[in-house]
Amino acid sequence: MTRFDNPALAETIASISVPDPRHHAQARSRLDSLTKPLGSLGRLESIAAQVVAIRSGSVDLPLKKAVYVFAADHGIVSEGVSTYPKEVTAQMVMNFLSEGAAINVLARLHHAELTVIDVGVDATFGDLPGLMHCKVCPGSQNMLNEKAMADSQLMTAIDVGLELARSAHEKQQTLIAVGEMGIGNTTAASAITALLTKQPVAAVTGKGTGLDDASTKRKINVIEAVLQRHFGDSHSKPDALNILQCVGGLEIAAMTGFFLGAARHRIPMIADGFISTAAAALAYAIEPKVKEYILAGHCSEEPGHRFLLQYLGLNPILSLEMRLGEGTGAVLAMPIVESALRLYTEMATFASAGVSEAKA
Amino acid sequence: MTRFDNPALAETIASISVPDPRHHAQARSRLDSLTKPLGSLGRLESIAAQVVAIRSGSVDLPLKKAVYVFAADHGIVSEGVSTYPKEVTAQMVMNFLSEGAAINVLARLHHAELTVIDVGVDATFGDLPGLMHCKVCPGSQNMLNEKAMADSQLMTAIDVGLELARSAHEKQQTLIAVGEMGIGNTTAASAITALLTKQPVAAVTGKGTGLDDASTKRKINVIEAVLQRHFGDSHSKPDALNILQCVGGLEIAAMTGFFLGAARHRIPMIADGFISTAAAALAYAIEPKVKEYILAGHCSEEPGHRFLLQYLGLNPILSLEMRLGEGTGAVLAMPIVESALRLYTEMATFASAGVSEAKA
Repeated sequence: MTRFDNPALAETIASISVPDPRHHAQARSRLDSLTKPLGSLGRLESIAAQVVAIRSGSVDLPLKKAVYVFAADHGIVSEGVSTYPKEVTAQMVMNFLSEGAAINVLARLHHAELTVIDVGVDATFGDLPGLMHCKVCPGSQNMLNEKAMADSQLMTAIDVGLELARSAHEKQQTLIAVGEMGIGNTTAASAITALLTKQPVAAVTGKGTGLDDASTKRKINVIEAVLQRHFGDSHSKPDALNILQCVGGLEIAAMTGFFLGAARHRIPMIADGFISTAAAALAYAIEPKVKEYILAGHCSEEPGHRFLLQYLGLNPILSLEMRLGEGTGAVLAMPIVESALRLYTEMATFASAGVSEAKA
Repeated sequence: MTRFDNPALAETIASISVPDPRHHAQARSRLDSLTKPLGSLGRLESIAAQVVAIRSGSVDLPLKKAVYVFAADHGIVSEGVSTYPKEVTAQMVMNFLSEGAAINVLARLHHAELTVIDVGVDATFGDLPGLMHCKVCPGSQNMLNEKAMADSQLMTAIDVGLELARSAHEKQQTLIAVGEMGIGNTTAASAITALLTKQPVAAVTGKGTGLDDASTKRKINVIEAVLQRHFGDSHSKPDALNILQCVGGLEIAAMTGFFLGAARHRIPMIADGFISTAAAALAYAIEPKVKEYILAGHCSEEPGHRFLLQYLGLNPILSLEMRLGEGTGAVLAMPIVESALRLYTEMATFASAGVSEAKA
């Protein structure tokens, strides 16, 4: 499968451009005129400049914030790679819809509109308010035996993300967190990370939701066997869409499409934890310009996450030892991003406030 | 000077007790019942447990947030230790009152009530709304030549902080950021840090608001001469009140009193950057139990800050390369603390949501 087998994907990729560096320079210049020592707001200044440049020089406040949680099941769970039973994916979707999960609490507090998308949960949901029905199929295949997704499943899942990005643009959302739920998906993310970053599987595989040491070792063995099965005989570097199809998952494919689509529409995005960042890394492998539109919300406790952040060249905003997913770390970074933009917009300048500048 | 020369201080210190560990254990137990993998909220869980224990087992939401900015001038500025002229302290106080400074923007966005206190600014302010007139004297003395504060100045400045903490308690404030403004006060904070942590002056002295290398070297030489003058011949460890009197500042003394007073009233506090944390460290040296009531908002770029955090045993919530003061890093951490408490209070439990728990 290549991008050209999916015209919507090919067109999206071709439409992504880097933000105009003049807007970035103008933002830096304004930051230097504000009543504070030069550079003293640290990373808040680079965050503000990045977002202002993405939005072509001006940011409407308040931000219109949203969080998307992509949910799917994973065939690899039958190999015993998770401490939770597969049913928990569907149960947590129901928990999202009844407002009881961590992401509900954070989205409420930080005024981010929550959208939950069933891309491939192995359960039948009725007509539930708040749930988007985009099920491609009831979970990916067991990637130890076959490709995680068939050609059409992969492309349909990517299309789900592209379409949601288009809709986010229509809704004029201006800051988007990208999260997920899927029992077994740290296994997929570790396989993706090993392939993209060339790190050994053991270095990028963690305890997920809480495996003990023996089960973590089994998880590593399963991932090594998966990589051997799909890429063992290959002497060429596998392409990102190949990686996604063989060892990804439906929610990861949808997030990959979403990162690409939102970049095309110039919407600043916050990647969440290990799995969300794996999708961001795949989007980056497909089109490096996408990186300019992504902020890293936090650095999680999953060991593969920091390798992905390095691969992307992203510096996480928070580092709070979280490992939950659902978009929680990304939404938690939203008040920091919003603070950066408020400071940029609302602070007085040395001239307007009559404050003496530093001695030369 | 000892604590016994100030009955209000002695009484405050005697009234500080550690939070009941049973409340902490109950909070941990509730956190483990919420619909998330055990411990997966990382440091948010320890923040929630700490604040819940401080508040004796229950936290009223929304929090009643406040930020106090203590301002004073420093005699040591005449030695050329700052890149800004002394007048900027008063100019920035005026900027706070006209809502144009960084702390105004952040306090507004995060709903923290701002109080600006003139503890010792070398300027005469009229009857300006929003300014508390608690001027002890128009700035500390030049500590290269004499003690920064006379006995009565030290104790009056500490009393300012004790009284503000009592008033915060009366106002039922439940989360307080402690910030400051004072040209020259990184010099005082570096001197305090060297004395408390036994680090060499060069290791705990930075560029402040933006000194070049030569001026930073001069600042280090000035601080070394200050320490030699006051403590050079001493073979015993100087006591915290001695340190504060000789090399502190009026706003640092007031913040020290404030940390002690707010701990006595069981109000969770967020220390800001280098200078605020120097006051927290002095309060800790006076009464170690105060530490239980303090969160570290962030780790600043001033090199001495991390030594103070180590000395206090505090893990900063944010690390965004800021070096502004004013309470900005502490207020920026407020949405994280509030998020932790909302998650604690509002998330569903496994039992209530019907979600399967992890396999044993």
